[in-house]
Amino acid sequence: MPQTARSISSHKAVNSSALLTDTYELTMLQSALHDGSAHKPVTFEMFARKLPPGRRFGIVAGTQRFLEELSHFRFSSEHLAQLERFLNPQTIAYLRDFSFNGDIDGYQEGELYFPGSPILTVKGTFAQACIIETLALSIFNHDCAVASAGARMALSARKRITIEMGSRRTHERAAVAAARAAYISGISATSNLQASQIYGIPHAGTAGHAFTLLHNSTQGADEKAAFRAQVEALGTHTTLLVDTYDISQGIANAIEVAGPQLGAVRIDSGDLGVLASQVRAQLDSLGAKNTKIVVSGDLDEFSMAALQAYPIDIYGVGTSLVVGSGAPTAGLVYKLVEVDGTPVSKRAPNKRSKGGIKASYRIHRTTGTLIDECYQIIPEGLPSQYPLNAPHLEEKQNWYRVNVPLVRQGKSVYSASINDSRTLVADRLRTLPWEALSLSSGEPAFHAYEQYP
Amino acid sequence: MPQTARSISSHKAVNSSALLTDTYELTMLQSALHDGSAHKPVTFEMFARKLPPGRRFGIVAGTQRFLEELSHFRFSSEHLAQLERFLNPQTIAYLRDFSFNGDIDGYQEGELYFPGSPILTVKGTFAQACIIETLALSIFNHDCAVASAGARMALSARKRITIEMGSRRTHERAAVAAARAAYISGISATSNLQASQIYGIPHAGTAGHAFTLLHNSTQGADEKAAFRAQVEALGTHTTLLVDTYDISQGIANAIEVAGPQLGAVRIDSGDLGVLASQVRAQLDSLGAKNTKIVVSGDLDEFSMAALQAYPIDIYGVGTSLVVGSGAPTAGLVYKLVEVDGTPVSKRAPNKRSKGGIKASYRIHRTTGTLIDECYQIIPEGLPSQYPLNAPHLEEKQNWYRVNVPLVRQGKSVYSASINDSRTLVADRLRTLPWEALSLSSGEPAFHAYEQYP
Repeated sequence: MPQTARSISSHKAVNSSALLTDTYELTMLQSALHDGSAHKPVTFEMFARKLPPGRRFGIVAGTQRFLEELSHFRFSSEHLAQLERFLNPQTIAYLRDFSFNGDIDGYQEGELYFPGSPILTVKGTFAQACIIETLALSIFNHDCAVASAGARMALSARKRITIEMGSRRTHERAAVAAARAAYISGISATSNLQASQIYGIPHAGTAGHAFTLLHNSTQGADEKAAFRAQVEALGTHTTLLVDTYDISQGIANAIEVAGPQLGAVRIDSGDLGVLASQVRAQLDSLGAKNTKIVVSGDLDEFSMAALQAYPIDIYGVGTSLVVGSGAPTAGLVYKLVEVDGTPVSKRAPNKRSKGGIKASYRIHRTTGTLIDECYQIIPEGLPSQYPLNAPHLEEKQNWYRVNVPLVRQGKSVYSASINDSRTLVADRLRTLPWEALSLSSGEPAFHAYEQYP
Repeated sequence: MPQTARSISSHKAVNSSALLTDTYELTMLQSALHDGSAHKPVTFEMFARKLPPGRRFGIVAGTQRFLEELSHFRFSSEHLAQLERFLNPQTIAYLRDFSFNGDIDGYQEGELYFPGSPILTVKGTFAQACIIETLALSIFNHDCAVASAGARMALSARKRITIEMGSRRTHERAAVAAARAAYISGISATSNLQASQIYGIPHAGTAGHAFTLLHNSTQGADEKAAFRAQVEALGTHTTLLVDTYDISQGIANAIEVAGPQLGAVRIDSGDLGVLASQVRAQLDSLGAKNTKIVVSGDLDEFSMAALQAYPIDIYGVGTSLVVGSGAPTAGLVYKLVEVDGTPVSKRAPNKRSKGGIKASYRIHRTTGTLIDECYQIIPEGLPSQYPLNAPHLEEKQNWYRVNVPLVRQGKSVYSASINDSRTLVADRLRTLPWEALSLSSGEPAFHAYEQYP
């Protein structure tokens, strides 16, 4: 029995998110407990000072993962034994009983964000709100980076199917979160089995060159044997990889083996546009008019857009998606904005932040197109509870509040499936003015700005 | 009791690495089991076709993490229930009993690598060696990216201390691996508590602006109160963050509160070089001649090198380190190089790989400086067991073998602590010719090339 108990506790320790934390969160806690300031009521805000270069908008992702990890943010006795080496008994005693019991408002998962958008508003004592900083930033900085890139790729793909297949290019656990964020952003499916299992995301796969190369005989390479095994094992709806040796011969072999009902062929090298046209013509000439063409190979939003002119059905996207297409981190920061009811902000150059708690809202045209994201600094309470003082909007229907309640007294009050979030992304992208949807480098479509009552 | 059993099993399922896998690994497996080719003896090789733009060398990291995850690569009944939806009973039966039982050679963790270096050589049946592809690539692509950037930063820092503080800019679990890879590469410490707990890496932390902002009174901001609490709680060896309001006043306040024995001050904004000079002069004038200066704020290897001219003691490095300083993935690939004793390679343009199993060795001058990385294609067995056929080297002492045994019959036979790997990085960096240590953009210092016996 003690053995069993140890196993469970040890698993708990590994799965707990409490040590996914910077040292300074806990040394600050110790200092603040020492003089009692740890117990002051404060508010922290998570936001982006700017978007990655050239980007017009960001997509919020990570919310549900954060709420889940926050519920596991507990210090085990094993953790505390480690922390005792540099923290005093008062701090250890505080951490022993710690679970987050504050309130959090935030943008929904799948919501748009811009520079200055108050993506997360965390209210609690300083001790409570300070020590979850690293966890919040890690999750949102990663997931928002992937979702923000993914949304641009999904837009570039237009009605074509997109498969996220970048697991091998990123940390093995980040890959699972990346698949999730990509799906929320509008990507159709993932190759990652764990993401499919945990989140119910559709999964997809084709075949690798190794499988074809595996099939050789004394006469040398035998591509048809590889295709035959795959079709027999997986059915004619499968996708055959045709570029291991010679693409024209590969297509001929594929249709000879599978017949014209073959599901798809995949091209993973060469000039994808030119090859897709040739392959389409060859497939059509062989009667395989419904056989789809999958292309892959270092695709990003720009090459996907450029390939719209060619007869391609499915894009496989790897590296650029999981590492945020040039912006592997969203650059979100987590700043103290209020202490004891008083707005605060630091004065360092280029790093100014706007003190105070922000109730955020967006104004749109009657057509639905966004015009502005604004906020009001609120005197007390939570942004989502604050009745806006905006007489110019009162009579109109063309605006909505953006902050929503996520956590009350430590308990999650937000529930959205990843399909809800995916739908929200699609809906919100439709509200962007056309210039914000441009792939070319440009300024953010909006900057959240203060509107005075 | 059943409840307990379920908890453990459910934890196991989460901690298993088996589903950190692309769908196509398992559909290829099914096809290969169907025609029996799954049981052919094969060899896969992991290597980099090229280095990230401008880089002269790469650092191998992830080896021990990979070996650890490989030992947990088991399909639970929960996994199999999920996989049954798209895999046939023969494949499920194979996976139920799966544990990797092949052999692996590889470069030691901390070893240099260049384009074409056979970083990992995996021998087993196709079934065995194929399905661990995604796991291997995920771990090495992430860890090598961080270590390769980290080594350049550690070189730029020269004798100065470096603290990895990038957890908040990357996925929460990737952050732990990043801290580990960074430490191996030569970075001095991490802010990440989990990395410190799991791997024994020295951890360090300073203080955030929030802690200073927390301290205010009816008279307004009270920086001295913040400093006083921190010094009392953490000791005079602590690091005070002095740029929340005004740096000169911050320094004056810091020394007034802590006395001239203060451990360090941190500057996190502004022109770090100019400010460091001013701060050094002010500290010296206050008698705080041993108080160190920590700087942080979007540092990378280039800015760290530029700051060598200024009186700085410690660099805090965040974003650029954990996302590989422009190269967030190492771009390693995993390719089939031998089937049934016969070298294989695909013919696709720009993606050619060299078939055959590579026994790798390096030649150096008597001074220790590297001259070449070569390999011989070996007829059978494992690279590390292959007696090189290199008569020109026989009499000389100036060469060494690079591949070492990592796994035999599924069991790890490689043991190196992270301190061993860190020492290896430092030793190997000393063997690089000076031009390979240049920060400026350039070609890889070496390309592994075939030497014929």
